[in-house]
Amino acid sequence: MNITRDTTERPGVFITFEGPDGSGKTTQIALLADSLRSAGVAPVLLRQPGSTGLGERIRATLLNSRAEGNIAALTELALMFADRAQSIHEIILPALADGRVVLCDRYTDSSEAYQGAGRGLGAERVLALHQALCDGLQPQLTILLLPDVEAALQRARARNQHDRETHGTDESRFEAEGEAFYRRVHSAYAAIAQREPARVQTIGDGDIETIAARVRAVVLERFPALIERAASV
Amino acid sequence: MNITRDTTERPGVFITFEGPDGSGKTTQIALLADSLRSAGVAPVLLRQPGSTGLGERIRATLLNSRAEGNIAALTELALMFADRAQSIHEIILPALADGRVVLCDRYTDSSEAYQGAGRGLGAERVLALHQALCDGLQPQLTILLLPDVEAALQRARARNQHDRETHGTDESRFEAEGEAFYRRVHSAYAAIAQREPARVQTIGDGDIETIAARVRAVVLERFPALIERAASV
Repeated sequence: MNITRDTTERPGVFITFEGPDGSGKTTQIALLADSLRSAGVAPVLLRQPGSTGLGERIRATLLNSRAEGNIAALTELALMFADRAQSIHEIILPALADGRVVLCDRYTDSSEAYQGAGRGLGAERVLALHQALCDGLQPQLTILLLPDVEAALQRARARNQHDRETHGTDESRFEAEGEAFYRRVHSAYAAIAQREPARVQTIGDGDIETIAARVRAVVLERFPALIERAASV
Repeated sequence: MNITRDTTERPGVFITFEGPDGSGKTTQIALLADSLRSAGVAPVLLRQPGSTGLGERIRATLLNSRAEGNIAALTELALMFADRAQSIHEIILPALADGRVVLCDRYTDSSEAYQGAGRGLGAERVLALHQALCDGLQPQLTILLLPDVEAALQRARARNQHDRETHGTDESRFEAEGEAFYRRVHSAYAAIAQREPARVQTIGDGDIETIAARVRAVVLERFPALIERAASV
């Protein structure tokens, strides 16, 4: 099996959204999808894990096992990639072959940042899995929403303080370990952007509309044909 | 995470059983387990996929998706390794650390033979996954039950002919594709045995009792301490 999965040879467009939790990915994907739709282009949206029938079963297995607290970090990583392989097979490749625009909420960069760096399994391991289970398929463009790390931590601490005062809980959502984890995830994303500047476009802090405008600008600069296609519809 | 998983440093004994379907693995594991028990050694038995709570959920997901006919070969491979990673974490490593004898019905060699060779995903890919998701953990001994390929195919054809005559069904369990698949699996097992003679002991045709005696002989030759341990109980 030597399937060439160079998406530059496919008529479709594959874009992923990445960033730490709370960076606004889901909002920004919805806004980009809206502006594509109003330009006459109906994108295919998916999230990982999830999206296929099998993927939803895998997602449920993951969440249940996490709740029970007995899932090994490597099992979690394998399940993430099982879901990804199925999404590629069932949704992404057929959509790209069909000339569609695919917008994916998290992809392999998330595994590298969260499992590789956050949980300490190592980037090399994650990239080996990406090669073996996704045949190395990468998006043409990754929008990385990466806020300033100190500002993001300060906002998280403030939210935490507010929650404690409001709900009278002692539970610290952002205690030392959470902060160290966040820093590892953030650094890993920054390293990915530095390693693959042609694929990864980093967008920093800003209000929702400012970021949305930057996302649109990046997408249309990279894929000017999207406008022509929209205009010709 | 640089966990050393060299089982030779562990007090336990890790033995896997491998071979094509119909080679008698399940029967032979049960017989070896019986003779270990009567020598005072209670082995830990497991099968792949399955055995852990999470593994059983993964097994069910696999079988359901196969029945629905919409699982990608790479997804299947990832799920097999998710189950394996969980077994290692939850059962195999703790049992070995505890000095137990672990008997496992199928392990990574099965993925190499069935998914790697049978489904054509390639041995290299399977071995990369084994490194990434099992940290390369291999058993000290693999009992490979490998019947003569022509004799096994002839028995399968005869069973098939018998089924057709008895049940009046046209369904051929062993038509051309089945035979080609069986040959690929069989060759892959033979290649593994040739590549890793120190780990893999091949046992050929014979009646159940003859094979059981050979299995016992191989195990006791490799692990004479099992006898001492049994004697000291």
